[in-house]
Amino acid sequence: MNSRDSESNAMHSGGGPQAPAAPLRMEALVSLCARRGILHPSGEIYGGLNGFWDYGPLGVELKNELKALWWRRVVRERDDVEGMDGAIITHPRTWQASGHVEHFSDPMVDCRACQRRFRADQLADAPDCEAEASGQHDFTEPRDFNLMLETNIGASRDAASLAYLRAETCGSIFPAFKRVRDAARQRVPFGIAQIGKAFRNEINPRNFTFRSREFEQAELEFFCRPGETGKWFEHWLDQRLRFHRELGFGEQVLRTRAHGPDELAHYCGRAMDIEFRFPFGWQEIEGIHDRGSYDLSQHAEFSGKDLSEFDEQEKQRFVPEVVETSVGVDRTLLALLCNGYAEEALPDGERRTLLRLAPLVAPIKLAVLPLSKKLAEPARRLAADLRRSFQVFYDDSGNIGRRYRRQDEVGTPWCATWDFDSQQDGAVTLRDRDSMKQERVAASRVGGWLRERLEAAP
Amino acid sequence: MNSRDSESNAMHSGGGPQAPAAPLRMEALVSLCARRGILHPSGEIYGGLNGFWDYGPLGVELKNELKALWWRRVVRERDDVEGMDGAIITHPRTWQASGHVEHFSDPMVDCRACQRRFRADQLADAPDCEAEASGQHDFTEPRDFNLMLETNIGASRDAASLAYLRAETCGSIFPAFKRVRDAARQRVPFGIAQIGKAFRNEINPRNFTFRSREFEQAELEFFCRPGETGKWFEHWLDQRLRFHRELGFGEQVLRTRAHGPDELAHYCGRAMDIEFRFPFGWQEIEGIHDRGSYDLSQHAEFSGKDLSEFDEQEKQRFVPEVVETSVGVDRTLLALLCNGYAEEALPDGERRTLLRLAPLVAPIKLAVLPLSKKLAEPARRLAADLRRSFQVFYDDSGNIGRRYRRQDEVGTPWCATWDFDSQQDGAVTLRDRDSMKQERVAASRVGGWLRERLEAAP
Repeated sequence: MNSRDSESNAMHSGGGPQAPAAPLRMEALVSLCARRGILHPSGEIYGGLNGFWDYGPLGVELKNELKALWWRRVVRERDDVEGMDGAIITHPRTWQASGHVEHFSDPMVDCRACQRRFRADQLADAPDCEAEASGQHDFTEPRDFNLMLETNIGASRDAASLAYLRAETCGSIFPAFKRVRDAARQRVPFGIAQIGKAFRNEINPRNFTFRSREFEQAELEFFCRPGETGKWFEHWLDQRLRFHRELGFGEQVLRTRAHGPDELAHYCGRAMDIEFRFPFGWQEIEGIHDRGSYDLSQHAEFSGKDLSEFDEQEKQRFVPEVVETSVGVDRTLLALLCNGYAEEALPDGERRTLLRLAPLVAPIKLAVLPLSKKLAEPARRLAADLRRSFQVFYDDSGNIGRRYRRQDEVGTPWCATWDFDSQQDGAVTLRDRDSMKQERVAASRVGGWLRERLEAAP
Repeated sequence: MNSRDSESNAMHSGGGPQAPAAPLRMEALVSLCARRGILHPSGEIYGGLNGFWDYGPLGVELKNELKALWWRRVVRERDDVEGMDGAIITHPRTWQASGHVEHFSDPMVDCRACQRRFRADQLADAPDCEAEASGQHDFTEPRDFNLMLETNIGASRDAASLAYLRAETCGSIFPAFKRVRDAARQRVPFGIAQIGKAFRNEINPRNFTFRSREFEQAELEFFCRPGETGKWFEHWLDQRLRFHRELGFGEQVLRTRAHGPDELAHYCGRAMDIEFRFPFGWQEIEGIHDRGSYDLSQHAEFSGKDLSEFDEQEKQRFVPEVVETSVGVDRTLLALLCNGYAEEALPDGERRTLLRLAPLVAPIKLAVLPLSKKLAEPARRLAADLRRSFQVFYDDSGNIGRRYRRQDEVGTPWCATWDFDSQQDGAVTLRDRDSMKQERVAASRVGGWLRERLEAAP
């Protein structure tokens, strides 16, 4: 028996990426994520903690790959962007300077009858009043409720010990502007990029991981001369759209939406959302903003430090302006899952679930599968060898068809099957997730074969 | 002029890794770190936030490389360890079950005169009393002060909304044990590994980043049958020591220290610290612990969930025991800096500062340096090409000797100089950081040359 034939009837059966798929039910995706170790509610055995999620064995790999790709494209492949990794707990002056302490809030109302609190703009979704007999809420006027999470550091607990968990990662970047610029010997135009956790006290976390209280951002603040902001805005919008296309997001699920004048913050010259079409609607996954010189001016004023640069041509100092690109890592990961999820009928009457993840970000690049447990030893050796360079999964339990399905379901782009012929010809059958096509490749060449495909990725 | 000759007199001058070096002054290292973008105090422009640090452009790369190496060795290259990435803000029951709410505290005293609070075991270091005229503190009896950072989530602020920032990353692992085990189809013996931030309200942060309030841990919880814990303890102690040797830590700076019976927690069968000799003394960078079945038993009791496994041989259920390896990422990074830092006299009377970082973790793998700005274009092309696979730095400013020094100082293992001969022979001079030896390599082969050296690393 040769594994090459094991899916011969099924080949192309699902129709591949072009086949029409049933609309994604979020419940099916949530269930897949928990069952296969992609992500699950944090503190699940204690009933979960609303708005907090844990990534499992496959989820952490997917997230790491997504972050690594962003870092490659935005930081490593350029010499005009510097990376950094700032503390999550940030100096309180940071958020006074940014305006968050005063303005980063949602309007909330309290119910005098049941004592619960609700977002004023979401009262239609509020559950019934719990107060006896009445059933009707007795709401107060809306009041502002700050969305930053607070903590206290040091031995005392008072105003002096108050600190904030950063509400956005750029809160680490702006105060470090001068230090990073000087240490890296940069001058505008250049950017500072960072990936890390941020926290918002969302009142109603919802839509799976889309609106969470703890989340990860990948942000770039690109500093430039006044007058060149428009050019850099276009450059970064283009770069970021390329990135999302590289993840496999096509025209049907990706669009830009310019903010209208009434949506813009007073300091913001222009803002463009990159939106993804989730099963629950078009939603922002990234924002590109022309923030002018607001951030550096504010931090200069609040710190008393000079954050300007000297213009050699004009012989005068100026405060750099900034173009910000801010992408939600968890949101983009959710978009990858929604975009990749498909259920297909196979000709033999079986069905398969698959995640069409771009190979560059797939949590497992290759599954090594011996056709029989008798072939475990050489297959294990191949897996161990390839693991030095790639995420490789080894599986020898169950029939080969079921093992393929398990890999399809978690987005593994290729499976290498070691069969009885392999013992003779030293080759394995490489099977493609989407087309289910198979080809024979020398075992010694599999590493190179993988590298070529990963490097040639769009 | 050919760059091959530019350091010919200096070759071997510093004597390489074996040369005796002056004892490291921490001030010199702290200054280098800030000046070159490795790390600096968080919120520096606002006077800093005690116990919090930001990693700069080179620091973030160094840290990412260190974490990636741990992940490769502990997770990716094994099939008995699964990764995860849990939320930082954790369900409060987690810390009741673990005993942190009750016991994770330091004894503190208050001064009735100046109202300040001090650690009871560090009163000798306490600054003078600030109360007028007296100069003498008037201390209360010691009281326990919990070291976990708290926050409140949701719309109200009361006991029901209290949550903790995790005090150690394993607080995410134990509650997820069953979910990860089942999703990954594992059975003991197997481990769950995680890298992430943790927080402790240290009263006296000190020794640079060594004792910080926000820090990163890389932890493995390896679950096994009762009776096999000793074997796995030995296995992981050996693995972890190999890891530290791979970082270049030799016998003079690395040792193990077994905890005495009086140091062990009641549930802890055995504990071994891996210590590094910092300029401020031998200090723990990693701990290996036999924690018995304490953690899973506690979480089973507090959650009411069954966290046991069925023993096929004995036909009975058992609660897995655990061997924990817990390494401080920031501490290990600090050890790398202390271990690598050296100042050397060169024969020409110049001095150089260098960081002898293991190439695998160096933030820049290769600097591409055109000998003259006239050669910038082909050198830039080479750098851009290599950047697709490696961290590559391009520098064309200043004389070549100064550019070498700048790379030595941040631990770049190799410099590739594009000189006038390169225009003819298509080759570059590759210069080794430690030996300062130079060799000529075809530009097209530099990628392969680098890959060979990085993969052959100890």
